[in-house]
Amino acid sequence: MSRIAYVNGRYLPHANAAVHIEDRGYQFADGVYEVCEVRDGRLIDEAGHLGRLRRSLGELKIRQPIADSALRVVLRETVRRNRVRDGIVYLQVTRGVAKRDHFFPPESVKPALVVTARPADRAKNEVGALAGIKVITVPENRWPRVDIKTIGLLPNVLVKQQAREAGAKEAWYVGADGHVTEGGSTNAWIVTQEGIIRTRPATGGILSGITRATVLRMARDLQMRFDETPFTVDEAKGAREAFNTAATAIVTPVIAIDGAPVGDGKPGPVALELRRRFHEFAEASDG
Amino acid sequence: MSRIAYVNGRYLPHANAAVHIEDRGYQFADGVYEVCEVRDGRLIDEAGHLGRLRRSLGELKIRQPIADSALRVVLRETVRRNRVRDGIVYLQVTRGVAKRDHFFPPESVKPALVVTARPADRAKNEVGALAGIKVITVPENRWPRVDIKTIGLLPNVLVKQQAREAGAKEAWYVGADGHVTEGGSTNAWIVTQEGIIRTRPATGGILSGITRATVLRMARDLQMRFDETPFTVDEAKGAREAFNTAATAIVTPVIAIDGAPVGDGKPGPVALELRRRFHEFAEASDG
Repeated sequence: MSRIAYVNGRYLPHANAAVHIEDRGYQFADGVYEVCEVRDGRLIDEAGHLGRLRRSLGELKIRQPIADSALRVVLRETVRRNRVRDGIVYLQVTRGVAKRDHFFPPESVKPALVVTARPADRAKNEVGALAGIKVITVPENRWPRVDIKTIGLLPNVLVKQQAREAGAKEAWYVGADGHVTEGGSTNAWIVTQEGIIRTRPATGGILSGITRATVLRMARDLQMRFDETPFTVDEAKGAREAFNTAATAIVTPVIAIDGAPVGDGKPGPVALELRRRFHEFAEASDG
Repeated sequence: MSRIAYVNGRYLPHANAAVHIEDRGYQFADGVYEVCEVRDGRLIDEAGHLGRLRRSLGELKIRQPIADSALRVVLRETVRRNRVRDGIVYLQVTRGVAKRDHFFPPESVKPALVVTARPADRAKNEVGALAGIKVITVPENRWPRVDIKTIGLLPNVLVKQQAREAGAKEAWYVGADGHVTEGGSTNAWIVTQEGIIRTRPATGGILSGITRATVLRMARDLQMRFDETPFTVDEAKGAREAFNTAATAIVTPVIAIDGAPVGDGKPGPVALELRRRFHEFAEASDG
């Protein structure tokens, strides 16, 4: 089956799906995106992702390209046309096409919208996640507005590639104050020796993860002990467990940091429990 | 006359010039660019721009899409097909088209190359520049690798827009140490009360401007006093003159900083002299 992409009002064969060379996303990274998990054909945490999209657009003063109700239809239609039961749906909004100039274009320039969907091998992803992943740590070097989910991801690309070349799958950024901020494409968590689930508060320095928020809610509902407190690399290395969250990673155990095993070097029970619970939450969702 | 753009080996009508939605430039800002002045049909400082392009690509481990000799032909052909006598030629290289994934794609993925050219109204630009521009100052908030000329320009877009909304044309970034780094799309200069032409050294915190280097060379050849030393906003406000350089701005006098006039609030003689000399240099160039 050939893939289909939604591009500015049209469903196109993926191979021919194109945007103008003067789309400001291409020349200025002047745009934002969201990635939403698809499970059993349903969109997981859709309201959270659309809410964050609105916020990102608002911060950059980019107009919403189409109403939320229409966007929800487009997301579903893209998922349906690609026959994705399990996988992801990706959407990107940019400030539109205009003669190259840093200044915002005139109001008449319409924002651009691209949506793609692709299947994932659920069983294979599960095996990969349950094996756990290794992370490296790298100095935080991104601009302070990482709370906006922009397509300006080159810094993230470079540290993720650095991780891969070091035999790891993710890079954790570490701020000048020694605290872990987040991963190149995930939020970072630990479980302390006291059994407390810990992640940095989303009050600066990180993207306010949608999966992060859902996991915090689950922890509360399950009466697990948790707090939102920054932690250092040493605290992470000395933790009982560590894990990452993201719409694509769900909850993925971290088994080593900079080559040092976390806990006994195997995925921890809390991370595995949260992953299982997240799947249950997703299966019960009506997205 | 309709415009023509070069896109990955083909010359296309500008209106139809497109790149794939999964070009990594569009999804990750994973690419670099150069802008070169065209004057009387010749490319000004071409060797400098191509040298910096090579360096930017090398820093990001993106392969050169075509040999320098071929690129020079493409630049000229794009200028010729657009009948640009005075204006700019723009080129952009990205890591190419691949299934969305932060990690670098396989070696088989070819980098993408886009080239556009457009005319400028030389007389109008001259009148605008000779009137001088106003700048505002903003806190430096970009990643430290601004020495690489990446397309990840959203921070610059936002401060340039902020400048425009404040009635100015450029924003000067100010580092945590109080020193001006550079403008949103230009290098920043002053002429001190002692008559010394001053700009920050290109050893970090700024892009190593090609026009900047040419202006420094001219100053030396003309035996004008200059140094490469950081300066503060207060030093700039108290300077005899201020100006910006870039391939598009050439040398543009700055007449006010954050609403305070520089010198007597009119373009200064050193900036005007350097602009005139730059035009002479460009006219004598064999680009």
